[in-house]
Amino acid sequence: MKILNTALHCRKEVEALKKKGKTVGLVPTMGSLHQGHLSLVEAAKKKCHTVFMTIFVNPTQFGPGEDFERYPRDLDRDAALAEKKGVDFLFCPEVGELYREGYSTYVEVEGITDVMCGRYRPGHFRGVATVVLKLFNIIPAHRAFFGEKDYQQLVVIKRMAADLDIDIEITGCPTVREEDGLALSSRNRYLDPRQRENAVEIYRALKKAGEAILGGEEDLKKISRQAIEILEKNPYIKKVDYFDIRDPGSLMELDRPGRGGQVLIAAAAWIGETRLIDNVVISKKK
Amino acid sequence: MKILNTALHCRKEVEALKKKGKTVGLVPTMGSLHQGHLSLVEAAKKKCHTVFMTIFVNPTQFGPGEDFERYPRDLDRDAALAEKKGVDFLFCPEVGELYREGYSTYVEVEGITDVMCGRYRPGHFRGVATVVLKLFNIIPAHRAFFGEKDYQQLVVIKRMAADLDIDIEITGCPTVREEDGLALSSRNRYLDPRQRENAVEIYRALKKAGEAILGGEEDLKKISRQAIEILEKNPYIKKVDYFDIRDPGSLMELDRPGRGGQVLIAAAAWIGETRLIDNVVISKKK
Repeated sequence: MKILNTALHCRKEVEALKKKGKTVGLVPTMGSLHQGHLSLVEAAKKKCHTVFMTIFVNPTQFGPGEDFERYPRDLDRDAALAEKKGVDFLFCPEVGELYREGYSTYVEVEGITDVMCGRYRPGHFRGVATVVLKLFNIIPAHRAFFGEKDYQQLVVIKRMAADLDIDIEITGCPTVREEDGLALSSRNRYLDPRQRENAVEIYRALKKAGEAILGGEEDLKKISRQAIEILEKNPYIKKVDYFDIRDPGSLMELDRPGRGGQVLIAAAAWIGETRLIDNVVISKKK
Repeated sequence: MKILNTALHCRKEVEALKKKGKTVGLVPTMGSLHQGHLSLVEAAKKKCHTVFMTIFVNPTQFGPGEDFERYPRDLDRDAALAEKKGVDFLFCPEVGELYREGYSTYVEVEGITDVMCGRYRPGHFRGVATVVLKLFNIIPAHRAFFGEKDYQQLVVIKRMAADLDIDIEITGCPTVREEDGLALSSRNRYLDPRQRENAVEIYRALKKAGEAILGGEEDLKKISRQAIEILEKNPYIKKVDYFDIRDPGSLMELDRPGRGGQVLIAAAAWIGETRLIDNVVISKKK
């Protein structure tokens, strides 16, 4: 595995690979790698000859008071994991390599960034869209791989890629979970054992809501309201930011489930000082 | 010359050219071609093997009440001029090819878009940056060529390209002028003969301000104020939006000229219902 620190080096490697007719897969991450990230590498290796991973804790997607400073960073451990999994190139730039003096350009995806996490983290998806576009320009891969755990992020990136005529296929990969169902997240490290034990309740509430819909419950507002009530009764869950039932393509809120198709159930909740998100997509049979 | 109407066709042509080792130059325009545009083609032909021109009257860079509807369009005439000048590929998409249903992504370049034309045309540079980024993705050229007449636009595009790690060299080309000095512009067509005759006063005022600075005048505010006064005394000039003296790189307003280096003098003024812009860059000797 080759470690790269500059955009210029990345571009040269990609150019050389393309000249040789190799396809390139891109796995953008913020490091602190877990099996979720590694499953993206696996997917990339299946679809592409060469896999680039990026590790960059992107300051522009953190709001004031968020966990940019304390976000876990361990490049040596991450590089070892990436190499073992078969990553070919690891791009881990300094902040100054991506945001130079006088930096002033941002990508806004409107509408779908106003809801869910966008409502609670203003500017977050602007930072995500901006850095992902930059990474796409630095590593013009054939395909890029993102986890479905960050479902809204995936929808935003797909929208951006379609709108801006970006010639990279965006691939979503299933959420990887612990044995009890907790979605893997770098932020799970913030949890103490009791918090960790209770964090899985978010996933349980999502599953339960999904079962209610599949069981024929039509009042989706009621399902959300009840889920929030139950979650907020748990003493380890400080606050539920949202528990939403939406169309998985447009992220439009659903009042009643359609006759068929898919339904997204997504939640964000605070376990102490840790904000966790999770979602499930259920398929209604026609 | 090959005429292309879809992004997919453009991409295929560029890919084939790059495989053959050809360099690609891009000249984005809104059509209604004049010698200014054709000088960009000339510059592109000097630097690149193959030249793409785009003709697209971009709705997102026009504000409400602006001249999007009446902006001159004459594709047959434009195509003949482009072909004669040696353009290899002409991309002229329909609006629906670039802005599909649900379109919602925009590029914002902050700071430098708040002043000069940005102040009077809110959203204009957002539309420009967005469509230029889209064209860069559709036609990933080696170089792109823009006229210095739209000086602020050139600075915005250079900033965007640097910030977003766009691998296209942005080249500015000198303003082409009529014999009396009027900068060529597609909007000059809106002028009646008397307006046309008086429109050159904008350029004369810019030149006069430049001479004053070169002559040692240090009070730049006074120079601007006097220029606006003189211009607005002309009965054909309805209003001067701005007459600014700025740093040509950062677009920061200058109170006093520096010891050396360059100074941008830029103006926008209304001749009847037609808004014209022009600028000169003067070099102070050290």
